[in-house]
Amino acid sequence: MTTFDLVIQNGTLLTMDPENRVIENGSLCVSGDSIAHLGAHIPGGYKSGKTIDAKGGLILPGLINGHTHAAMSLFKGLADDLPLMEWLNHYIFPVEKNMDADFIYTGTQLACAEMILSGTTCFCDMYLFEDQVAQAAFQSGLRCLAGEVLYDFPSPNYGDLESGFAYTQWLIEKWRDNPLISIAVEPHALFTCNPELLQRANQLALTHERPMILHFAETLAEVEEIKKRYGKTPLEHLDSLGILGPHLIADHAVHLNPSEIDQMAEHGIRVIHNPESNMKLGSGIAPIPRMIDRGITVGIGTDGGASNNNMDLFTEMDMAAKLHKVQAMDPTVMDALTVLKMATIEGARALGLSHETGSLETGKKADIIIIDTHKPHLTPMYNPFSHLVYAARGQDVSHSIINGQLVMENRQLLTLDLEEIMARAMEKAKDVRKWVSNP
Amino acid sequence: MTTFDLVIQNGTLLTMDPENRVIENGSLCVSGDSIAHLGAHIPGGYKSGKTIDAKGGLILPGLINGHTHAAMSLFKGLADDLPLMEWLNHYIFPVEKNMDADFIYTGTQLACAEMILSGTTCFCDMYLFEDQVAQAAFQSGLRCLAGEVLYDFPSPNYGDLESGFAYTQWLIEKWRDNPLISIAVEPHALFTCNPELLQRANQLALTHERPMILHFAETLAEVEEIKKRYGKTPLEHLDSLGILGPHLIADHAVHLNPSEIDQMAEHGIRVIHNPESNMKLGSGIAPIPRMIDRGITVGIGTDGGASNNNMDLFTEMDMAAKLHKVQAMDPTVMDALTVLKMATIEGARALGLSHETGSLETGKKADIIIIDTHKPHLTPMYNPFSHLVYAARGQDVSHSIINGQLVMENRQLLTLDLEEIMARAMEKAKDVRKWVSNP
Repeated sequence: MTTFDLVIQNGTLLTMDPENRVIENGSLCVSGDSIAHLGAHIPGGYKSGKTIDAKGGLILPGLINGHTHAAMSLFKGLADDLPLMEWLNHYIFPVEKNMDADFIYTGTQLACAEMILSGTTCFCDMYLFEDQVAQAAFQSGLRCLAGEVLYDFPSPNYGDLESGFAYTQWLIEKWRDNPLISIAVEPHALFTCNPELLQRANQLALTHERPMILHFAETLAEVEEIKKRYGKTPLEHLDSLGILGPHLIADHAVHLNPSEIDQMAEHGIRVIHNPESNMKLGSGIAPIPRMIDRGITVGIGTDGGASNNNMDLFTEMDMAAKLHKVQAMDPTVMDALTVLKMATIEGARALGLSHETGSLETGKKADIIIIDTHKPHLTPMYNPFSHLVYAARGQDVSHSIINGQLVMENRQLLTLDLEEIMARAMEKAKDVRKWVSNP
Repeated sequence: MTTFDLVIQNGTLLTMDPENRVIENGSLCVSGDSIAHLGAHIPGGYKSGKTIDAKGGLILPGLINGHTHAAMSLFKGLADDLPLMEWLNHYIFPVEKNMDADFIYTGTQLACAEMILSGTTCFCDMYLFEDQVAQAAFQSGLRCLAGEVLYDFPSPNYGDLESGFAYTQWLIEKWRDNPLISIAVEPHALFTCNPELLQRANQLALTHERPMILHFAETLAEVEEIKKRYGKTPLEHLDSLGILGPHLIADHAVHLNPSEIDQMAEHGIRVIHNPESNMKLGSGIAPIPRMIDRGITVGIGTDGGASNNNMDLFTEMDMAAKLHKVQAMDPTVMDALTVLKMATIEGARALGLSHETGSLETGKKADIIIIDTHKPHLTPMYNPFSHLVYAARGQDVSHSIINGQLVMENRQLLTLDLEEIMARAMEKAKDVRKWVSNP
């Protein structure tokens, strides 16, 4: 008799596999960290360490937040609706100057709680003190691709750039072979990183076969600045430095012309779309439908808590679907399935993690969420993909399993002490208020 | 000793009154259907029939959904991402042809459940069988401005147009003096109503001092059609019919030029913005910041369940704030307070209901919601307005009081049998599937 560690029953399986199989009244079996079986029934006799009744809900791969600065969850609502430079100079910079490792650890734990509670099982982070980010993610049970931000200025974490490269290399070694955490090389952006920094980061990424992740063509101001400094568009600038390649993940990718999109596709560059942040900061609308049309792998992210201000990937999907329809004045653009793929299998591909997550397939890691559809706003249900993108919210997620571990059961977090984290977050917010009023 | 029927304590009061007073650790007292007192403390001794502890959360006026077709909640997710004519001809029309009074009653109850659960206390409806809509709203305890849709075709409810006017007049009489329900005159749109219909509807509205509500300048196709038929823009056409005036509520109002906006302001025409519907159907972006700038009263609505597909006004606010920022490429456009006003006091003004709802003021009807902020995605809180627009979701509403009646307590509906409604909705969905497959 087969023994599974966990069996989920009585739900519609949305596999997001290459055939996009949907299995009604299906079951999914987990052994250790992996999916051992899924289908309409479980063959033969079996025993199960734990059984979860999905109660007719939806069972799907956990969502993937392709770009965030998790600890900025401590800044959400601190300052909104302001011109960019006022926002940066009066709020973000004074705060970031004062942050320390414990601040980042607390902020990331808070974000991890929010992410698990809204159905995210994997996130990609770029910020300071990333060892603390990795620790907080690992402790919460979340899958995470983390990278310390590198730029031309001294860092409150590592100090000078030389130490920044050493720190990144140390992170790569420290977290090598961790089942949940992997490390990327993450220069901040073209306007904050000189060419030598970018080339050295690129070399480090290639040597360790790690992704290189950077903010890219996010604002018109950035494009203008790069043109002024180098006489080139951001993509031309990267190309001239010999950096284009499939290890590159471009966050935002808003201001690009059609031929640049073709060039990105040729080089296998992956993109993370951040619609809410791009809207809230007035950055612009990334040409995502064209990118997908050209075969570029596109994931979706929330960006940080100060420019969104939530980490709910369900509403991020809703926004993405609707934003591109109205821009194109065409309701057929960015259909629900395409958008859900961005948050699951395409998001996993964008981060280079599709061998382990992003779909429900035998042998893949068990990263799974269950949606409770027994609610008026999800009743009746004609099309699960439509409901997930246009009607569901993060708070409809009832269970979350990551790498085979049950991290949320009936909306109760099992890996994090929510009360304790929120109490510490409120303490940190007192520091933030102080830093902002006495910059 | 004063006796109140209900006292809410221990929360931050966001009054949305003319001074936009925010009262921390405030109390609010209800007597009968009205707000009897609100402030930092309750003077003198008092007794209370019921006391609610807001647990440090936010206490604010209930949200106002300025435009919806509530019963279409039964169609959400039925068909998305389709060209308009395919959506209408293959899905919406076959279904609407078959609907009856019981269908509308069930669909409206479902929508009322969703609305209460997401913080809406008042909605404006336009659809068929509006007496059933009014009954369902009244039974659920929701405040509602309802109106039977009038157009050039026979209606599955009233039959010919003559009967439609009689039905509207009957509705006005039937619901006169009802504490929750009021009736509007609602011709569908300029392209579905001939000039005579519009003028007669207008006269009916003026005679009974009721608002006249219509879909207005929603799509470019509509504008082209009106130009083709009458050689005028939609506003010029209404003007030529002598219909412009402060009794007019224009839903959508997407395709208008600056001088038309000035003219609308001069005539005191009110507008309901429906950003998610306009985005999802690819209709366009209404020039809302300019309208507000010109002094036009603008509310916000979700539109029907088939073109959104949710009735969560929190995400509608989020979408509105972000949409106009990215269109203007300016993060200062449509700040959080402006947007929250659209869903509260300005929404009440737009519907002509600001004498009774939309703000927390002594003497006004007690339409109040409480937000549970003790959650990671709302922690810490620097600015309640920012959190309500950019971070909160309908499911964060813990309590709802309408016209002095507690309709939701700790997320439990007190006026509706949710299980029974969802069961009936699923039965109706079976009919819908049948109608669509055999149109």
